[in-house]
Amino acid sequence: MSSRPRIAVTMGDPAGVGPEVCLHLLADKAIAKECTPVVFGDEAILKRVAAAAKLPFETPVVSTVQWKSDWAAIDQPSVLDLQAVSAEAVQPGKVSAITGRAGFTYVDRAIDAALAGEVAAVSTAPLNKEAMHSAGINFPGHTEIFAARTNAARSCMMQYSEEITCTFVTVHVGYRDVPALLTKERILDVIELTNDALAGLRGKQPKIVVCGLNPHAGEHGLFGDREEERIIIPAIEAARSQGFSIEGPLPPDTAFLPWKRKATDAFVCMYHDQGHIPVKALAFDTAVNTTLGLPIIRTSVDHGTACDIAWQGKANPSSIFSAVRLALRLLK
Amino acid sequence: MSSRPRIAVTMGDPAGVGPEVCLHLLADKAIAKECTPVVFGDEAILKRVAAAAKLPFETPVVSTVQWKSDWAAIDQPSVLDLQAVSAEAVQPGKVSAITGRAGFTYVDRAIDAALAGEVAAVSTAPLNKEAMHSAGINFPGHTEIFAARTNAARSCMMQYSEEITCTFVTVHVGYRDVPALLTKERILDVIELTNDALAGLRGKQPKIVVCGLNPHAGEHGLFGDREEERIIIPAIEAARSQGFSIEGPLPPDTAFLPWKRKATDAFVCMYHDQGHIPVKALAFDTAVNTTLGLPIIRTSVDHGTACDIAWQGKANPSSIFSAVRLALRLLK
Repeated sequence: MSSRPRIAVTMGDPAGVGPEVCLHLLADKAIAKECTPVVFGDEAILKRVAAAAKLPFETPVVSTVQWKSDWAAIDQPSVLDLQAVSAEAVQPGKVSAITGRAGFTYVDRAIDAALAGEVAAVSTAPLNKEAMHSAGINFPGHTEIFAARTNAARSCMMQYSEEITCTFVTVHVGYRDVPALLTKERILDVIELTNDALAGLRGKQPKIVVCGLNPHAGEHGLFGDREEERIIIPAIEAARSQGFSIEGPLPPDTAFLPWKRKATDAFVCMYHDQGHIPVKALAFDTAVNTTLGLPIIRTSVDHGTACDIAWQGKANPSSIFSAVRLALRLLK
Repeated sequence: MSSRPRIAVTMGDPAGVGPEVCLHLLADKAIAKECTPVVFGDEAILKRVAAAAKLPFETPVVSTVQWKSDWAAIDQPSVLDLQAVSAEAVQPGKVSAITGRAGFTYVDRAIDAALAGEVAAVSTAPLNKEAMHSAGINFPGHTEIFAARTNAARSCMMQYSEEITCTFVTVHVGYRDVPALLTKERILDVIELTNDALAGLRGKQPKIVVCGLNPHAGEHGLFGDREEERIIIPAIEAARSQGFSIEGPLPPDTAFLPWKRKATDAFVCMYHDQGHIPVKALAFDTAVNTTLGLPIIRTSVDHGTACDIAWQGKANPSSIFSAVRLALRLLK
């Protein structure tokens, strides 16, 4: 029996770069020493992508029936063939309701496996939200799927890299919808989730910066509707009363200056682009997306389906490797 | 008679780091070969700061009466002593209505000098907005002062650096006030101002990226109120019909990826932090702030009054040097 944790790796939207980065992962000898990746996907798609992208595909394939009885014995890189889509129905780079539904199925089944204890964590390749929506699946992203399927009381997105780590009070909502979603309780939840996760990763009390909402963090009420004074500062004070090390609310633009980044373990961001802009500008190829607060560990690549280069052998697989390795660190 | 352009350099809020960075500029031999900086400020403050920060201050001082008759003859670094504040009324790092009013006076008089053709451009040291507000001067920043005082029909802020250059559709307004301020006309104005400025600086047709407002640029209407489709795309199409090279609206987080930055001369940003976050994260010590669309050339440091280190000899003057040098490039 292997001591290596089994990690479910979802194949992502079949028309995107997900299958290709999974093939790289399955063929990697170093990863196979650290864990047992099991790609939740479709064998027929992986075969077609391997041929198109000139990549090896010699991994054992397990059926859903075999998985049911033998999951505990699987101790080498494998594919769980969910047969969610017919290979002929998929064209490289052409996402559709069919590919959107298949991509969702891989995630759905991986969550089942994680909740059942069959895998230790889930790492996800990219979905395409428009494809999912056209299939009638109205989740804006992985974060929300995992939160709903695991009945998480509270959760938040974290983008983790060595250069900069951000967590998010709001994520996949329109710009104008953000202010109404900011509450003291939600911000405090995200601060607590951030503190817990970084304490585990760093092995010590983390230093957390909380960003303001408005330019210059409102400059004491000159800009905005005093969201800093009314909502963000009370959340920070509640977190400090628990003994956390919190600075803020900082002006969002100066929060990410180089010396501030060095002194900060994580930035709590009020909205998607407040944190995604600096993460992608500074750590575009190493950042990993994860969801905090779930009963299961979930990490994800930090890129999209990249349909323009799908199935061409051009995709950079470094992000899926980073995602699996962060899952292993979070497991410890 | 000198061929070097006279540049008005405003001293900034007297309680901040402005006087100190001006002293560095006045003492610099290289700058004196490129132009004739004239600090619009207070001699008594500069003397106190020079003593406190152990900096030289041997620059000739001109009174307002002398300036009136002799401005055209001034061809070496000088101070125009506006006597806007009594030196005893100012404490290092303590901004107040008194310092806010003085800082504004320097700018106001520099604009007069520029409009009269007495100086070729204005470069500004930092003001403190709260100090100005407590003096009853309700401009949110330099950009708005220059726009109002010069009756500019249209203008916008640009943050310029070799690494990344951003222009702004909105700047000093609350987060929640941004969507109502986005119009096709305003975005087109900013695209046109950006194109003109960068064409001048680059000597060729610039490549411009326009950012979306919502996460993922709205993902075709999934997030937000279709601001991309309703407002931003029509502005881009109008700009393209003039022959401009425009890409967008791009998702704000992927717009600033390293390879995209290399291929882009300027990013048109919808709101303050969309552009200020990447500029400060990537070019914190070299970016220069300027206002496009004015009848006069105006550049500014990219830092605030830094009251915590004011008058201590610790301020890094590189930004005021960059500001003066960008003014000289824009003059050409």
